[in-house]
Amino acid sequence: MDIGSILQQIEFIKEIDKLKYIQRKTRLFNSERNENDAEHSWHLAVMAIVLAGHSNVPVDVLKVVKMVLIHDIVEIDAGDTFIYDTQKNHTNTDDERLAANRIFGMLPAEQASELIAIWEEFEAGQTGEAKFARSMDRLEPLLQNSSNSGGTWKEFGVKYEKVYEKKKVIKEGSEALWAYAEGLINESVEKGILEK
Amino acid sequence: MDIGSILQQIEFIKEIDKLKYIQRKTRLFNSERNENDAEHSWHLAVMAIVLAGHSNVPVDVLKVVKMVLIHDIVEIDAGDTFIYDTQKNHTNTDDERLAANRIFGMLPAEQASELIAIWEEFEAGQTGEAKFARSMDRLEPLLQNSSNSGGTWKEFGVKYEKVYEKKKVIKEGSEALWAYAEGLINESVEKGILEK
Repeated sequence: MDIGSILQQIEFIKEIDKLKYIQRKTRLFNSERNENDAEHSWHLAVMAIVLAGHSNVPVDVLKVVKMVLIHDIVEIDAGDTFIYDTQKNHTNTDDERLAANRIFGMLPAEQASELIAIWEEFEAGQTGEAKFARSMDRLEPLLQNSSNSGGTWKEFGVKYEKVYEKKKVIKEGSEALWAYAEGLINESVEKGILEK
Repeated sequence: MDIGSILQQIEFIKEIDKLKYIQRKTRLFNSERNENDAEHSWHLAVMAIVLAGHSNVPVDVLKVVKMVLIHDIVEIDAGDTFIYDTQKNHTNTDDERLAANRIFGMLPAEQASELIAIWEEFEAGQTGEAKFARSMDRLEPLLQNSSNSGGTWKEFGVKYEKVYEKKKVIKEGSEALWAYAEGLINESVEKGILEK
């Protein structure tokens, strides 16, 4: 690679710093402080490394890690969408695709194509890697909300059925982690921090 | 892996959330806001993925990514050490080794050993992966300080020679990135944001 590539890559590296300003609805563990997208992406990447052995199918761990590290970068342009927001479409919006093309498009062409493809694969959620990456994305806020006496479930009045429906996606990535997650959801109902 | 492993891994995942509270001296790009260790680790991981092609030697990218994702976890117990602090030893302190054993030791034995070994390898800085990971760790604050009219250089009166000495480690990971970094340091002197 030449110096031209480095200059393009550095511009991309500077641009994605903006992810650190994008606040999620969810709060840190046992905390009142909102998590931002960069912290969230870091946490999912470590989770993926530590939990990959529980995937239903063998996965390319580096690809899963790339997916979770970059999956929210489109939110720099498109903003964060709360998973329990009933007004907004959670599938690949045009805004997100435009954002992917603009931001990953700052990189040299081959890298831009690779990262756009990885982001698309994550969004489509069909491959083993995408399913496992998505299970990480659903598991982290479940752990956070259950540590925060209900967290965003309480705050936004989200009930058991809705949580269960969103979280059962974990099963597609890992039956073992879903068994744990399902237990945690039921326990949350028993504790009165998730309303049935 | 069994449910016992999952429970250990979840405790580890909760514990490392504390990395999000550890403030670095360095500030975000074009910003007054301090960066925390989780954000920093995320940024280095994406940088490693994007810049790996510039490594002096071919590297196992997943290993580099693991290194940068976990390299600061010991600071949960041992605290952040400012690179230009002249009072403190920057090599592997006993505190950091104790922290590595405690925190990674929360994981199932085999994983604990793997992550402790990866952390030790990063600290030792001898392998191609460790050299490249360390070059990422030196490059990010250089980019930040130069975007912040001198940033921590100005704030703590750090001069050219000291910056040059700390940053030349980048060369061990990547001659190409060092050529860029050296140019940026010289440009910072010319702009008057780094004192010679």
